[in-house]
Amino acid sequence: MQQLVRVQNFGVSADGYGAGEGQSLERPFGHVDPGDLLGWALATASFPGRSEPGGSRGLDDHLVRGSSHGIGAEIMGRNKFSPHRGPWQDHEWRGWWGEEPPFHTPVFVLTHHPRPSFTLADTTFHFVSGDPADVLAQARAAAGGQDVRLGGGARTVRAFLDADLVDTLHVSVAPVRIGSGSRLWSSPDELDDRFHHDVVPSSSGVVHHLFWRR
Amino acid sequence: MQQLVRVQNFGVSADGYGAGEGQSLERPFGHVDPGDLLGWALATASFPGRSEPGGSRGLDDHLVRGSSHGIGAEIMGRNKFSPHRGPWQDHEWRGWWGEEPPFHTPVFVLTHHPRPSFTLADTTFHFVSGDPADVLAQARAAAGGQDVRLGGGARTVRAFLDADLVDTLHVSVAPVRIGSGSRLWSSPDELDDRFHHDVVPSSSGVVHHLFWRR
Repeated sequence: MQQLVRVQNFGVSADGYGAGEGQSLERPFGHVDPGDLLGWALATASFPGRSEPGGSRGLDDHLVRGSSHGIGAEIMGRNKFSPHRGPWQDHEWRGWWGEEPPFHTPVFVLTHHPRPSFTLADTTFHFVSGDPADVLAQARAAAGGQDVRLGGGARTVRAFLDADLVDTLHVSVAPVRIGSGSRLWSSPDELDDRFHHDVVPSSSGVVHHLFWRR
Repeated sequence: MQQLVRVQNFGVSADGYGAGEGQSLERPFGHVDPGDLLGWALATASFPGRSEPGGSRGLDDHLVRGSSHGIGAEIMGRNKFSPHRGPWQDHEWRGWWGEEPPFHTPVFVLTHHPRPSFTLADTTFHFVSGDPADVLAQARAAAGGQDVRLGGGARTVRAFLDADLVDTLHVSVAPVRIGSGSRLWSSPDELDDRFHHDVVPSSSGVVHHLFWRR
């Protein structure tokens, strides 16, 4: 069984941004409302951590539901983990997700600033530096033969794409423009030389772009 | 967690047939070539039992990949299990799928003709009669809290739809006409009074119809 590197449910704006400018504790996506990019996923029955019954079970739900199956490790950029910059002032910050993070696997956080690993419920966070290939080697080894999810943000996904380390990529494009921030691409067509590309409009208003290696 | 009744990857023709006439050992779909209805699924990387590397990883693959997760039991009509009709002449026939059936759960085969249960690898086949609600109650109890897959054929799906026992339904409509056989519907729009309905064209040429209860 091939061990894939997968990007999933990654939301960007029509102009290709995955987050805005000015990330803070109160505004993890900076000047952008996360619902503008990811509202389609939050509305599905299978969204992790959904506490109320109901939710859609159409195309959007199929994409969300499949995204946690077969994943053995996650890689994320530091800005997905934390709004802080520079050396860690202390170790009190343990991510945005409370005591039960939705990952349920080892998570490798990319940062130049060392910090000890820690565990919350069934998720262990490791803090690693190195180029994408080095970090991926660590994540693969920790994934127990399962796939590795590349969780974002946009610059992290871009770095792994530029290193040609991504096997499948699901990006939802929302009908909003952001103008500045953390950018994935100018256009989804940029990847067509290296990937097959399905373009799938959803009734929720986003367009799903599904890529897999040629 | 709600225990759903799910129909998945069920292929029909443009005129609504899931199989043709004249089923036999050599032609499980009767006068229809199964590739005409299900070629889109066979071409995916995740199709169960796929022995060669490769295969698509776009929209079609997302739908196939998700279809076995969270399933604790299957219900199928007798014609999905066997080309024979009437009382069992012997018990030599053990399904179309060889020694390792792709179900990995208890399977309830609808038939008026009693037969002892048997097990192949991690799949156990039970032969049951009764109305859809009775059979579903048995399958739910066997599913260990997971969902129940309603595997077809078309008449079986139709009977459960008519009894209002289906929660989600994924039907692929292929651009071929069959004219006669086992029919699911005249038109996908028949279900719109009871179900939300996403219509999702695939680059493979089929159109996926995804329904969930209103």
